[in-house]
Amino acid sequence: MSLTINQGRLLSEIDALASFSEVEPPVVTRIVFTAPDLKARVWMKALCQEAGLAVREDAVGNTFARWNGSDLSAPTVGTGSHIDAIPNAGKYDGVVGVLGGLEAIRALRESGFRPRHAIELLIFTSEEPTRFGIGCLGSRLLSGTLSVAAASKLTDKAGATLDEVRCGAGFTGELEQVKLPGAYYKAFIELHIEQGPLLERLQIPLGLVTKIAAPASLRILIEGSGGHAGGVLMPDRRDALCAAADLILAIENAARTSGAIDTVATVGICEIFPGAVNSIPSRVRLSVDIRDTDVKRRDLVMQTLGSACRSVSTRRQVSVSTELLNADEPADCDPAILEVLSQSCQKHDLKFIPMVSRAYHDSLFLARIAPIVMLFIPCRNGYSHRPDEYASPGDIVRGTLVLAETLAALSS
Amino acid sequence: MSLTINQGRLLSEIDALASFSEVEPPVVTRIVFTAPDLKARVWMKALCQEAGLAVREDAVGNTFARWNGSDLSAPTVGTGSHIDAIPNAGKYDGVVGVLGGLEAIRALRESGFRPRHAIELLIFTSEEPTRFGIGCLGSRLLSGTLSVAAASKLTDKAGATLDEVRCGAGFTGELEQVKLPGAYYKAFIELHIEQGPLLERLQIPLGLVTKIAAPASLRILIEGSGGHAGGVLMPDRRDALCAAADLILAIENAARTSGAIDTVATVGICEIFPGAVNSIPSRVRLSVDIRDTDVKRRDLVMQTLGSACRSVSTRRQVSVSTELLNADEPADCDPAILEVLSQSCQKHDLKFIPMVSRAYHDSLFLARIAPIVMLFIPCRNGYSHRPDEYASPGDIVRGTLVLAETLAALSS
Repeated sequence: MSLTINQGRLLSEIDALASFSEVEPPVVTRIVFTAPDLKARVWMKALCQEAGLAVREDAVGNTFARWNGSDLSAPTVGTGSHIDAIPNAGKYDGVVGVLGGLEAIRALRESGFRPRHAIELLIFTSEEPTRFGIGCLGSRLLSGTLSVAAASKLTDKAGATLDEVRCGAGFTGELEQVKLPGAYYKAFIELHIEQGPLLERLQIPLGLVTKIAAPASLRILIEGSGGHAGGVLMPDRRDALCAAADLILAIENAARTSGAIDTVATVGICEIFPGAVNSIPSRVRLSVDIRDTDVKRRDLVMQTLGSACRSVSTRRQVSVSTELLNADEPADCDPAILEVLSQSCQKHDLKFIPMVSRAYHDSLFLARIAPIVMLFIPCRNGYSHRPDEYASPGDIVRGTLVLAETLAALSS
Repeated sequence: MSLTINQGRLLSEIDALASFSEVEPPVVTRIVFTAPDLKARVWMKALCQEAGLAVREDAVGNTFARWNGSDLSAPTVGTGSHIDAIPNAGKYDGVVGVLGGLEAIRALRESGFRPRHAIELLIFTSEEPTRFGIGCLGSRLLSGTLSVAAASKLTDKAGATLDEVRCGAGFTGELEQVKLPGAYYKAFIELHIEQGPLLERLQIPLGLVTKIAAPASLRILIEGSGGHAGGVLMPDRRDALCAAADLILAIENAARTSGAIDTVATVGICEIFPGAVNSIPSRVRLSVDIRDTDVKRRDLVMQTLGSACRSVSTRRQVSVSTELLNADEPADCDPAILEVLSQSCQKHDLKFIPMVSRAYHDSLFLARIAPIVMLFIPCRNGYSHRPDEYASPGDIVRGTLVLAETLAALSS
């Protein structure tokens, strides 16, 4: 079997997908179930069907494009990622795993390979938490990590429920049907850009992920007292933004001093009310994201944050309430699949290193019901979630080739 | 002459004006040249005309309602304030001076008083900086403090210029015609709620303002580096929001430690980009408002802020740029008018204290071309610029009565 990755086809598809965006390319904003996402889904399905794959969608919009194997009772070998994008993102996050996955399958079909196990491309719904405040919505439901009851309570910023939004987008099935059976996948491999600087720094084209870090996210609501910026003297103030500033720095410091380089914490949203030049802020809402490969260390950071909330509340006489949105377990990648991956790398004489993923991925949740592995390729400066996110054509093709090789080995 | 303030009429008008709002009463949002503001203007003009006053509007929408005196060559005695309101404000800020001013004029007319000097109610355009980023737009132009060239460069958040917006609202005249002649006013008196807690705390119904503090405002733009909240390790980060938190606390500390209780500083706006749960903030824009009765002390706070910007920029490797929007001179109130005001208080056996205004007012700018005085009444808890802003009927009537008495004395 001789595998050929069609670089021109793959890169032109990555460019084409970037045009489904709320903003002008190369900036990509593609939020789940908005018009750009729905148009991108139609385009993706057509592409999968052209490739000879059978497409099905579940009730939350997870999309499966299937190439049946010769043994219809054998479990499936899966690959895939997501196509939704946060506001002002780039064109590679998730997309490399989806279009690279499709290209890998096409390369196998074009090589004359015939699988025994079915090979399936899976496009997850709403990996990004932008709309519903929780990441990996599709994979959480696929793996049963998120209950249907809890999913039904999710709302977007406009107050629309998940059920309203998905049904409006044409996904009217029952959420109860989304969860996959435990033995559905023999293996699942997600190809992804690293979203960090390590591979580029080491000049190594491939990272074999052995572990995905455990993320937690919280919302913090600070309520102080507003008033006129000229009328209230400093000792009389209960400024919610000053309290937020204390917490932003406390969160940063807790991550920096955790004792391990793996701990990261980010305040990504800071909404302030009323938000006028000459008004003392009375209310601030923060969103906090904390990640670590070690759950205990991550939970220590959360405890430190809790203490900071209490002390800021007392010192500044503001009310501080926290809401834990999720605190997930880390996932280990499957050693047997890692071995197959490393053989594929060696076959093509490609260097690789084992590494940890601190970024959130659907594979984290799929790991609850399937043996998983992630395969990373370098991205420039480690940039991701920004318009200048970039992965080189050579790296994309190398990742896709190793993915195809591995899918072949696992599905034989 | 026996003066009677019609409390029922005045209070019902204050309530009626609050209904011109983007949001439900008692919350008031009435931003200059938006639909609620334009409707409120129509309603106010009709009220002035019903009271027998001749109404004219200038090119920026400042509205003059005039009662001619017997000596047409004598300079005018003015009173007034503003009716625009920041987002989620209350119903008294500015409004008490406008409707109280109108009621004072009506009370004089109904008492049979006939003035020698004209008495004029002046409703200033855009005292609040909400739309164009600069406060006291109307009075700055009336007094020549803001040049027509600088005013022409003002834009709102949507990018519309002041000229586009005012012409769209029907104010199509030439801005060059707005500036008043130096001898136009014999005296100008602005009745206003205190917007601070002093009068209430001392249980004194009236404050005679001797000085208006000098406000300065700045915008600070912080540019760091974005990226994925999981992908970039803490030592590699250049988080714009963490830098903003440093500056918010530095500003607060500079005001707290200025050596005088009169110094206040507020960060009222904090806009963050891209503003996603799992993205490191790459850009933050802050608005800063610094006020003091002493220009030198205020400028020292600004210097301290400048130093903080430089040190945060160096330490965090972010770019920090500041834009000074305004740094105004304080205004002294006119001792002769203060004397007339104090006589009016004494005539009605009302206690008063001399005090300083730390809030921004149109009188600050009118002081450049006219002898001015401000008259404060208490407001509950010192609250202003919030929906629970409140002044009691008794205090409003007392202020209006003293205003009417003073207008009579000055226009005789």
